[in-house]
Amino acid sequence: MSSTRPDLPEDGILRYFSMAFCPFSQRVHLLLAAKNIPHHKIYLTAVEDQPTLVESLIIAEYLDQQYPHPRLFPTDPLQKALDKILIERFAPVVRAVYPVLTCNANAPPDALQKFEKALDVFETELTKRGTPYFAGQTIGIVDYMIWPWFERFPSMKLNTKQRYELDAKRFEKLLKWRDLVAQDEAVQKTALDVQLHAEFQKSKTVGNPQYDIAFKGKL
Amino acid sequence: MSSTRPDLPEDGILRYFSMAFCPFSQRVHLLLAAKNIPHHKIYLTAVEDQPTLVESLIIAEYLDQQYPHPRLFPTDPLQKALDKILIERFAPVVRAVYPVLTCNANAPPDALQKFEKALDVFETELTKRGTPYFAGQTIGIVDYMIWPWFERFPSMKLNTKQRYELDAKRFEKLLKWRDLVAQDEAVQKTALDVQLHAEFQKSKTVGNPQYDIAFKGKL
Repeated sequence: MSSTRPDLPEDGILRYFSMAFCPFSQRVHLLLAAKNIPHHKIYLTAVEDQPTLVESLIIAEYLDQQYPHPRLFPTDPLQKALDKILIERFAPVVRAVYPVLTCNANAPPDALQKFEKALDVFETELTKRGTPYFAGQTIGIVDYMIWPWFERFPSMKLNTKQRYELDAKRFEKLLKWRDLVAQDEAVQKTALDVQLHAEFQKSKTVGNPQYDIAFKGKL
Repeated sequence: MSSTRPDLPEDGILRYFSMAFCPFSQRVHLLLAAKNIPHHKIYLTAVEDQPTLVESLIIAEYLDQQYPHPRLFPTDPLQKALDKILIERFAPVVRAVYPVLTCNANAPPDALQKFEKALDVFETELTKRGTPYFAGQTIGIVDYMIWPWFERFPSMKLNTKQRYELDAKRFEKLLKWRDLVAQDEAVQKTALDVQLHAEFQKSKTVGNPQYDIAFKGKL
């Protein structure tokens, strides 16, 4: 929890600083889980410097190099560069959906349209790749790096007036992919329930963010 | 030039697509020059998808892996990750200075203050590292990745009412570094004159961008 700074043992074990509901932190958490990397978890109420898409990706790449089992980035350098560029193309999805996802009353009226347009890139790419995962027949880095937002999207059904859901036809491949990724062990280890995500966002919107609800029944 | 699409020979040689005044393109150009990588240059009047800081960095990392002489990224994985994060921290500098640099009449009044604050990070880091270059005793990836904007900053002296220049005391280390980097061979190969930068920006502001002035006297 976040009330006092915990004593951190000097044991050389990785320290994972995180805010329980932060999707960028979850990216790193997914790698720690997928690779079974021993680590201490330290939860903060807010991350001081807002973590950026880019920094979590840099950390992920570093961890993949230092802990290569299983290898999550492509080993082919060109494919690796292309996958990293694809991951960066998720930034417009995040930017557009953020005000809706976080129940911001001032969300631009065309936010959801922009979000869907940005998400089309991923539906198209998955169709083009013709594989169940972006990485191929097994899960890989693109899948993990974009997952945290797919875990949060369903909270829009609970938190928006129009009970927003991804269109079953427009995002057919992505929705299949989502059901598949949801079964992944690392994803399940780091997952929070959609009700919790929705509840946290609402608490944040009214100016009283309930970080600790992530640990309900786990104390 | 950009008037017609040139015939591109299928010779397996790298193709470098660029807009002559684009600082992100110059990042890649610097690597091609530093590593003497054979390439075709194709100049466009505008890059279709606006290139992002991140993509040019991904391309740079790919080139460094494929053409390792001279190696420009740190070989130590942790230092490499830290340097990449430092390069990403240049994004707030770019964001803040962009409206001033491009003579945007609607530049926020505090843009230069924000710019200087963001740039402080680099003055502090260079002081901490205590070396002439960010990379150490010789030039490296951080130096090349942030250089294109330092080449453009002096155009503010020509294009702003207050004849803006970097403060000699506040940015003492960075200004020494700038004079040093300016002598680098790859930097000199890709450099455009400050008058040209200033002229291009002004032409863009009035809605008539003169891309071709980059090739003055070179045709």
